[in-house]
Amino acid sequence: MSPASRYTYLGPEGTFTEAALRSLPEAATRELVPMVSVAAALDAVRGGDAGGALVPIENSVEGGITATLDELAVGEPLMIYREVLLPIAFALLVRPGTALGDVKTVTGHPAAQVQVRKWMAEHLPDALWESAASNADGARLVQEGRFDGAFAGEFAAPTYGLEPLATDIHDAQNATTRFVLVGRPARLAAPTGADKTSAVFWLRDDHPGALLELLQEFAIRGVNLMRIESRPTGEGLGRYCFSVDAEGHLTDRRVGEALMGLRRRCLNVRFLGSYPRADEVAARVARGTTDEEFTNAADWLNRALDGRA
Amino acid sequence: MSPASRYTYLGPEGTFTEAALRSLPEAATRELVPMVSVAAALDAVRGGDAGGALVPIENSVEGGITATLDELAVGEPLMIYREVLLPIAFALLVRPGTALGDVKTVTGHPAAQVQVRKWMAEHLPDALWESAASNADGARLVQEGRFDGAFAGEFAAPTYGLEPLATDIHDAQNATTRFVLVGRPARLAAPTGADKTSAVFWLRDDHPGALLELLQEFAIRGVNLMRIESRPTGEGLGRYCFSVDAEGHLTDRRVGEALMGLRRRCLNVRFLGSYPRADEVAARVARGTTDEEFTNAADWLNRALDGRA
Amino acid sequence: MSPASRYTYLGPEGTFTEAALRSLPEAATRELVPMVSVAAALDAVRGGDAGGALVPIENSVEGGITATLDELAVGEPLMIYREVLLPIAFALLVRPGTALGDVKTVTGHPAAQVQVRKWMAEHLPDALWESAASNADGARLVQEGRFDGAFAGEFAAPTYGLEPLATDIHDAQNATTRFVLVGRPARLAAPTGADKTSAVFWLRDDHPGALLELLQEFAIRGVNLMRIESRPTGEGLGRYCFSVDAEGHLTDRRVGEALMGLRRRCLNVRFLGSYPRADEVAARVARGTTDEEFTNAADWLNRALDGRA
Amino acid sequence: MSPASRYTYLGPEGTFTEAALRSLPEAATRELVPMVSVAAALDAVRGGDAGGALVPIENSVEGGITATLDELAVGEPLMIYREVLLPIAFALLVRPGTALGDVKTVTGHPAAQVQVRKWMAEHLPDALWESAASNADGARLVQEGRFDGAFAGEFAAPTYGLEPLATDIHDAQNATTRFVLVGRPARLAAPTGADKTSAVFWLRDDHPGALLELLQEFAIRGVNLMRIESRPTGEGLGRYCFSVDAEGHLTDRRVGEALMGLRRRCLNVRFLGSYPRADEVAARVARGTTDEEFTNAADWLNRALDGRA
Repeated sequence: MSPASRYTYLGPEGTFTEAALRSLPEAATRELVPMVSVAAALDAVRGGDAGGALVPIENSVEGGITATLDELAVGEPLMIYREVLLPIAFALLVRPGTALGDVKTVTGHPAAQVQVRKWMAEHLPDALWESAASNADGARLVQEGRFDGAFAGEFAAPTYGLEPLATDIHDAQNATTRFVLVGRPARLAAPTGADKTSAVFWLRDDHPGALLELLQEFAIRGVNLMRIESRPTGEGLGRYCFSVDAEGHLTDRRVGEALMGLRRRCLNVRFLGSYPRADEVAARVARGTTDEEFTNAADWLNRALDGRA
Repeated sequence: MSPASRYTYLGPEGTFTEAALRSLPEAATRELVPMVSVAAALDAVRGGDAGGALVPIENSVEGGITATLDELAVGEPLMIYREVLLPIAFALLVRPGTALGDVKTVTGHPAAQVQVRKWMAEHLPDALWESAASNADGARLVQEGRFDGAFAGEFAAPTYGLEPLATDIHDAQNATTRFVLVGRPARLAAPTGADKTSAVFWLRDDHPGALLELLQEFAIRGVNLMRIESRPTGEGLGRYCFSVDAEGHLTDRRVGEALMGLRRRCLNVRFLGSYPRADEVAARVARGTTDEEFTNAADWLNRALDGRA
Repeated sequence: MSPASRYTYLGPEGTFTEAALRSLPEAATRELVPMVSVAAALDAVRGGDAGGALVPIENSVEGGITATLDELAVGEPLMIYREVLLPIAFALLVRPGTALGDVKTVTGHPAAQVQVRKWMAEHLPDALWESAASNADGARLVQEGRFDGAFAGEFAAPTYGLEPLATDIHDAQNATTRFVLVGRPARLAAPTGADKTSAVFWLRDDHPGALLELLQEFAIRGVNLMRIESRPTGEGLGRYCFSVDAEGHLTDRRVGEALMGLRRRCLNVRFLGSYPRADEVAARVARGTTDEEFTNAADWLNRALDGRA
Repeated sequence: MSPASRYTYLGPEGTFTEAALRSLPEAATRELVPMVSVAAALDAVRGGDAGGALVPIENSVEGGITATLDELAVGEPLMIYREVLLPIAFALLVRPGTALGDVKTVTGHPAAQVQVRKWMAEHLPDALWESAASNADGARLVQEGRFDGAFAGEFAAPTYGLEPLATDIHDAQNATTRFVLVGRPARLAAPTGADKTSAVFWLRDDHPGALLELLQEFAIRGVNLMRIESRPTGEGLGRYCFSVDAEGHLTDRRVGEALMGLRRRCLNVRFLGSYPRADEVAARVARGTTDEEFTNAADWLNRALDGRA
């Protein structure tokens, strides 16, 4: 297969990231390559060894995946093309023949422990937990006989010759992880009407109110922010950049003008892509901010300059 | 002379308006026609009987000249081409041979009375004041012998065969009247770098905060407002439009985008012209709002759409 | 009668101001004294010669009554205790026996002319108009035989021995004049739930955005502005103070905190009173700005300071 | 020792957290107890087993320490009493007698790897890295002979019988970790003039602009925000709370009023303490927001209510 038809992802095999990637129709025709880190998955794309990379970016329990946010903010520019939402639900995977009463030791990623705590208190109050490097690694350790059970995605069971003893385990309701499919920048696809735009902003100086002004550039043009996270710039405490998702597509006039406003006002802006919202909720467009109203206003300005307004 | 070479002004002859008009170099080659009202002066322009009209628009003591503000806001559109500032200073005009001790009765426009009160208390404590329809009318009444003195512009003296007995009379410091030269709309002249833009805004609805949003459209683009006045729309108490002067020229990108923003947000916007500031103070352009920065941001947007940002 | 039981008003007798004053129940027990000017009416209150003064403050066609706005803004402080709304409607007053066909000349205040123009075009297309100093003066001139008809309030007819030949004449729909009853400052009456607060603000310096900040002090606390007018401070063009009416009463926590915010931020604030709204519309109180929420927040702060939040 | 004289910290011994804790003068008289997690360190305080806990809250390279932010935001309330800043600088710790040329394998916490990458490329280009659970754990593994060198704080050397072969290693300039000393809530100590206030806000609803309004409550009162981080509430993607540090002390009127404003506007506010800034930079207090101006404004309001403003 050509590099373009290869997709990397945050591995190892059997992780939620792989499951998210496989939920994309095009995954069926791609070579899917697990990588040891978000950085490695993205660098393969940057280096031309892969056409895309699927990485987690946000989790409704743990928050932003800082490795992904920081990797996208610096280095060779990349662009987000798709997002995938995956409900968080664990299965307890065991070797065939194991009964619940046999499970004395369990493993999984530390983030999994947070999600299965209540379930364990009820069903496995005496089991000992030891963390693994990933949920898939935990499954492998059960396969190797080092633990009796592993909390992982149910989809990981066949890979490691295990069976799910319980499924749909998650302490938090609505717990969801959001993944993004990242590639090298290219001409933007047309808007679908239910789009999202991601970008990173470095405020020009550290003056009080700089973040307020950033938000006003969006607000005054009726652009709703869906996510905003501050990340350190690495230049010392108190120095941040802001990673945001905004409703709408860069070709929407209100979004384009807001980003141009920020481009003028900020030290730097990095555009990370406009792509379809996984929830397919159409953008709310406030009165005065439709493309038609932008066009009419531009026509009016031209007439005014011409003495015909 | 052709109508285009005729300038009307708020008469009668000998008013401050005539003096302001004569301060314009081009006045020397125009036919100057006094009119009985601001409406009449402007209607002559609208009807094609005059190429321009000079009318007062603002006074640092009395405030906005509502007749002018309201006439410009409705009816056939007109455009401001020039502004003229005239310090307010009165002369006491008398018939030749009159001494200060002879002045028992004085007249003038009611607005003049406010400006000469302190001077009269000191120099003519016993003189009786009776108002005239205009300062020039007052001078005429002195000429006719009905009063001993008239407070008017010194320039009115020769017209009425009078002599100034005292000059530079004005209670308020820095008292100034601002006049505008109005014509039919035409293609805008190029900016001078020290320009002013006038417009009227009708807010879309009467929701709390609508005025705040109007001001934010200017503020977020670094456009300073030099004057803002609310005027009733005539639709009942609590319904206003806003007449403003902003720093800068409609061809300045920050000004154009602010006015387009208002055009989208408002029920109606009437552009009243971009013209040189009489005080020749160059616009302060905040960081992030220069034409170059607007152009760079537009270039950046195009590159982003193209996958090359 | 004692001075306290005397009310002055902008005269002469027969004006709309007198009609507005007589609409107040307490007017029946007061001595009503017409004065030649707003300043004279207010000075009588300041000097202790009258307990109150009724003066016009705003007109839905003409705008703010600048004499009143400016008189209230400077000099010995006064306070507004009541407001009165009076629909603008003119009657054509004639001497008994005059028919419409007999009316060749008419008079009235210049402001009246604006309001009866359309009616005259239809019913008296050939009549000549000449302005009078007030509507009441016009009625007097008809009584004296100098004009055939006067446009004035219908209530002026008996005073001048005239009869209304037509009534309810007004070109603008909803045309209304607003009057205020002004007295010397005293302890505020309790809120009615449908109150209005008036004040004047002098911005601390002339920095861009100062007006925006003023509006934000109100907006952030959910206080709706019903009227805002800029008035020159007299210190030169471009120097303004702002006269506002806000929804609510100074004892409403949201209003009190907003005015304290402005007191801190402004060069000067003059409180002009909290008084019942003539339209009796109850204040809209946004979530988070009720008195109870203010009290709860203060309790919370005290607990936090005490380590018990 | 009594529980009150016991301080827990994020262990194990030899971590940067221990070093930060020992930099506090009072640490000399406390029993210092390492705990396996931030949660465990804080729970000891909540449960009364310790008088205080020192935990990392922010790192200029990695960002907010989410375990700490989330633990402080929910559960039994705690309060921050002190902050400690510690520059990030690693030493390469080896067994006595080891020379640089002998170092073939190294270890440390994954976060350390990021900070020593450039140094290793220069000085140990061929050494193999394997991560340890903490920097202190890495030192222990070197003591046990499993690795040749560990990157850890220089202060960890004596604990594990090691020697520093190189010190002050850090790729990023100004890299700093910020720690907070947390205890049970108590009456606030007096301000020092260089204070910081921490709090968490849950916006009342997810309406566009809610964050903007939050920032305005601070901005309008001149309170500068030093840190703002969004954290998921756990109720699903797109639902955030905001953790902030503001300049000033809760007893500063501007800070207290801002927090009351947020208490009214937000679903919930959790106050996390006002405490001295480690950098001892005095608060910038904008004109109009000093305690004296707040007091004067309150006096003015009382006079206004009383008719004496």
